[in-house]
Amino acid sequence: MNDKRKLVLVGTGFVGMSMAYSFLNTGGIDELVLIDVDKEKAIGEAMDLQHGLPYARGKMSIKAGDYSECKDASIVVVSAGVAQKDGETRLELTNRNAKIMKSVVEQIRDSGFGGILVIASNPVDSMTYLAWKVSGYPKERVIGSGTILDTARLRYLMSEYLNISSSNIHAYIMGEHGDSSFVPWTHAYVGAKSLLDLLDEKHKDLSDLHAIYTQVQQAAYEIIKRKRSTYYGIGLSLNRLVHAILDDENVILTVSAYQNGEYKQKGLYIGVPAMINAQGIKEIIPLALNEVDQAKFNHSCDTLREINEKSMESIA
Amino acid sequence: MNDKRKLVLVGTGFVGMSMAYSFLNTGGIDELVLIDVDKEKAIGEAMDLQHGLPYARGKMSIKAGDYSECKDASIVVVSAGVAQKDGETRLELTNRNAKIMKSVVEQIRDSGFGGILVIASNPVDSMTYLAWKVSGYPKERVIGSGTILDTARLRYLMSEYLNISSSNIHAYIMGEHGDSSFVPWTHAYVGAKSLLDLLDEKHKDLSDLHAIYTQVQQAAYEIIKRKRSTYYGIGLSLNRLVHAILDDENVILTVSAYQNGEYKQKGLYIGVPAMINAQGIKEIIPLALNEVDQAKFNHSCDTLREINEKSMESIA
Amino acid sequence: MNDKRKLVLVGTGFVGMSMAYSFLNTGGIDELVLIDVDKEKAIGEAMDLQHGLPYARGKMSIKAGDYSECKDASIVVVSAGVAQKDGETRLELTNRNAKIMKSVVEQIRDSGFGGILVIASNPVDSMTYLAWKVSGYPKERVIGSGTILDTARLRYLMSEYLNISSSNIHAYIMGEHGDSSFVPWTHAYVGAKSLLDLLDEKHKDLSDLHAIYTQVQQAAYEIIKRKRSTYYGIGLSLNRLVHAILDDENVILTVSAYQNGEYKQKGLYIGVPAMINAQGIKEIIPLALNEVDQAKFNHSCDTLREINEKSMESIA
Amino acid sequence: MNDKRKLVLVGTGFVGMSMAYSFLNTGGIDELVLIDVDKEKAIGEAMDLQHGLPYARGKMSIKAGDYSECKDASIVVVSAGVAQKDGETRLELTNRNAKIMKSVVEQIRDSGFGGILVIASNPVDSMTYLAWKVSGYPKERVIGSGTILDTARLRYLMSEYLNISSSNIHAYIMGEHGDSSFVPWTHAYVGAKSLLDLLDEKHKDLSDLHAIYTQVQQAAYEIIKRKRSTYYGIGLSLNRLVHAILDDENVILTVSAYQNGEYKQKGLYIGVPAMINAQGIKEIIPLALNEVDQAKFNHSCDTLREINEKSMESIA
Repeated sequence: MNDKRKLVLVGTGFVGMSMAYSFLNTGGIDELVLIDVDKEKAIGEAMDLQHGLPYARGKMSIKAGDYSECKDASIVVVSAGVAQKDGETRLELTNRNAKIMKSVVEQIRDSGFGGILVIASNPVDSMTYLAWKVSGYPKERVIGSGTILDTARLRYLMSEYLNISSSNIHAYIMGEHGDSSFVPWTHAYVGAKSLLDLLDEKHKDLSDLHAIYTQVQQAAYEIIKRKRSTYYGIGLSLNRLVHAILDDENVILTVSAYQNGEYKQKGLYIGVPAMINAQGIKEIIPLALNEVDQAKFNHSCDTLREINEKSMESIA
Repeated sequence: MNDKRKLVLVGTGFVGMSMAYSFLNTGGIDELVLIDVDKEKAIGEAMDLQHGLPYARGKMSIKAGDYSECKDASIVVVSAGVAQKDGETRLELTNRNAKIMKSVVEQIRDSGFGGILVIASNPVDSMTYLAWKVSGYPKERVIGSGTILDTARLRYLMSEYLNISSSNIHAYIMGEHGDSSFVPWTHAYVGAKSLLDLLDEKHKDLSDLHAIYTQVQQAAYEIIKRKRSTYYGIGLSLNRLVHAILDDENVILTVSAYQNGEYKQKGLYIGVPAMINAQGIKEIIPLALNEVDQAKFNHSCDTLREINEKSMESIA
Repeated sequence: MNDKRKLVLVGTGFVGMSMAYSFLNTGGIDELVLIDVDKEKAIGEAMDLQHGLPYARGKMSIKAGDYSECKDASIVVVSAGVAQKDGETRLELTNRNAKIMKSVVEQIRDSGFGGILVIASNPVDSMTYLAWKVSGYPKERVIGSGTILDTARLRYLMSEYLNISSSNIHAYIMGEHGDSSFVPWTHAYVGAKSLLDLLDEKHKDLSDLHAIYTQVQQAAYEIIKRKRSTYYGIGLSLNRLVHAILDDENVILTVSAYQNGEYKQKGLYIGVPAMINAQGIKEIIPLALNEVDQAKFNHSCDTLREINEKSMESIA
Repeated sequence: MNDKRKLVLVGTGFVGMSMAYSFLNTGGIDELVLIDVDKEKAIGEAMDLQHGLPYARGKMSIKAGDYSECKDASIVVVSAGVAQKDGETRLELTNRNAKIMKSVVEQIRDSGFGGILVIASNPVDSMTYLAWKVSGYPKERVIGSGTILDTARLRYLMSEYLNISSSNIHAYIMGEHGDSSFVPWTHAYVGAKSLLDLLDEKHKDLSDLHAIYTQVQQAAYEIIKRKRSTYYGIGLSLNRLVHAILDDENVILTVSAYQNGEYKQKGLYIGVPAMINAQGIKEIIPLALNEVDQAKFNHSCDTLREINEKSMESIA
């Protein structure tokens, strides 16, 4: 049988390892290989995970390895890079991480890897663009984690506010994973009811929702202030994204996807709702943004294009 | 319905949080409350977990709280304490952690908590003894994580060595969770076959197994050397132990249990195979140790008694 | 610890047993008790389930029992009753099943049961009404399986038609679980996009959807024609409903709920979207039906009221 | 990605369908194809399963199909055949089922199937032998369900008797899946303790265990008497076996395996402990049977050889 679900993780920082540990708990993959520029670190992390296997639901093979392991992998997730510091904007990370990303992606590409490449390093939209450029892969095979965590935060906070399961909250954070993201509220639903109608019914206005969005936007800062970095939320989000690919789910997630006019923008990666399956990004789901939201999206794109240019220059 | 499975975690370091995050992935509890002397830290950790909920299998309520939350909890897990440093023996941790443990357990007790108390702080056997003394709880309601992780490491390494599922490896690490632990090899089985018979069949002797035991014993040091501390393996082990209690499993796990002569020793907590169910430690499983193993166990007990005395003195 | 999740099943036909077997596979309950008027049948079913326990994820206690077991149960599911025959309408079942239901509910009530009563016997809307009347329980504690399976069928067929995950299909079958049910298409969404808008974009009209609805409506007949009865789909649907209650999910499911004017009708049980949590039916979600759909709903209610009267008369 | 876990089920009776429904609940496969000589039956069963997908953990594709679907399957499970009647011995089924099995296996073989063939039709040991003969596959690629359910029954009943988790019961039912099976009690363990020693400690003798074995042996008859046939226990057992293959577990299960002298017998399939992984039966685990147990095994083999000859003659 040639039906192994092999996942390679590049970068064994807390974000990547939280995804890896998540799979040990949920199962769903057959092989996990950890790669890190600090090889001893990868070995130590593999040992720590291995020792949980006798109590784990997931029966998988776990080891540290090198880039040759990418050759027959189903998915490679890259979370390598320097972490965001307290007070640092995501954008400031770019120059520090572009060189790392270039080196990582070249080695993945040179292994002969033929699967789906998931980028989780920050600033994620620029790093995904760069990974796509360097890899030369078709756009659908390169996916950035984008606003997948931001959307989870939004849905969690709305579920608390409305006292309803987050599985009934259908709303997205779009745009850059960073300060210029936004929620297209006219496309937000609770069950099969428009959120705006629901607020009307309850005699509430949008101000509470704006407060929720602000909380989402500030969430990373608030967590970093208290525990130095954020990783459990994104770890589970990456597990979700990888499952969607491996299970060929055709499910909508807000990921960083290459724009080809679906939202009137082209030539960059940015967070939008997209359908994910075994081919990667099957298609972007176009929503008719109102003027205000389209302006926000355009602004987010402008910001990113500038960063992308700088990051591409820095590795030229 | 009054059927909530409420778990309180005291101490939001990597060990405790790895257990908490594990439950977010596996489900199995209804409420999770995080307590830490650094209240902001607990809030930050709760936020990081909460944001994973929309993608989690486990539907649970998560929050930071204080000791009053223990009152109606099913289980309280304590992982508070200073972590083991590179080069530091588990025994040297005692004086640093005894005062913390005393304060924690007093506050748990004063809440009116009526469930099972699980201790995971190191040095775990002494800390569990101290928690039992301070709490005044019946001995079956206080459980130390003991050698539960050491046994997982042993089973993992043996499964790799023998190329057989760890679920078919029936062997225990007994004694102190530390340098004086040991494996009673005459009570080790692979499937329904004595391990010693199996080695005979394969024309091997015990030297490979001794090498495996040495690896187990050195595992913490090897991991700490590479990633500063070890937490994923113990996180899953604690998830396993908590499940055994909540599911009333009557399953055998090697935990730190109060000795009442089952292994010819009394008046201390130490790692032995014990049956775990909703009452906590239902009973210790007595194995007929050979002379060499009994001597090792006695030595382990002597070591611990000395530490217990010192730790009790230090908080007197 | 008094945190047992105890489920009692009354009626061990294929529908009830498919739910029971589902829990053996998924876990999530602690105790399962089977009650049947044919006591030997219940014992045989319990044995068949018990023998799967060593390979099951769910660690639960399983046994056959009598109505005294309902006293401390969290949930009682009733699937007792005569099954639908090939060619028989759901409505024709009423007179055959009303007497059975009366006897069952009286015995549950007399046990002192204080949890949530779930009715899955057909015709389900009338049987739920009757159970509510006989029990004297508050309306939120009595839930009929309603159109929960019909909605699953709709979402499955739409997901195949649109080639998108059923988790992104937000649409409901409302009304009687039977020939007079309907889909309020103006309240159907795919991701965060109106279904009607989506069809416009794809240059399709509603005729395909009407064909899908017809398939849903005919599904039971089609399956019964081929395998005599239908039970796996409803078995999983009941597992879903029970989980929503036990996990206090606040999730929207289309169940048979007591009407108090939310949809301009009162005094009967019928399938509508409702929020389910540990209290049972927390609230009905009111959607603004258009004229055509409101007329269908009214018609469905009229049909049911007539049956309810007859069934109440038959047990007077 | 070419990493699909495709399972084909031939025979959609209650045994096979209970396995299929089990996978809908647990997940773990990507595609499920149902084949039945009654094609409409297979279509109806597929529909019933499909409608559960929106509420299922397992995201899989389900359909009815024909033998060409076996070509790229990972595993084919055959449960086709006439069911055991009340009062009928398993051995009497042979002549009724041999012809069916021959036809089924020829069609599987002719599809170009290259995976693992699991036989669950009764009498299972003879049917597996016949399937191996007809297929021409290497012996490790053909596995009979053997005594996998009998062993589960034994472990369940012992766990109830000893009040200990069945996961700590290490004991096997060996021999024919039928009247001549037996338990090698000297190779039975509870945790890491010999069962015989444990009984000594508790001042009990083997008579209770003999009663338990009798219950195991009578279990099918007892269940059939009450509910006409037995299928949930075997459904979960088959799920377990398929998982062991797909997850490459190297786990010990008691299956019907081709004998090549491991237990002093050759040239037939019979229930023994064997290690299961992605290659099928990796190896038989030889236990040193005492004289009495070896005699029982020999007797069981003699019985089977006679049946095998007859069944081979009947299809010659």
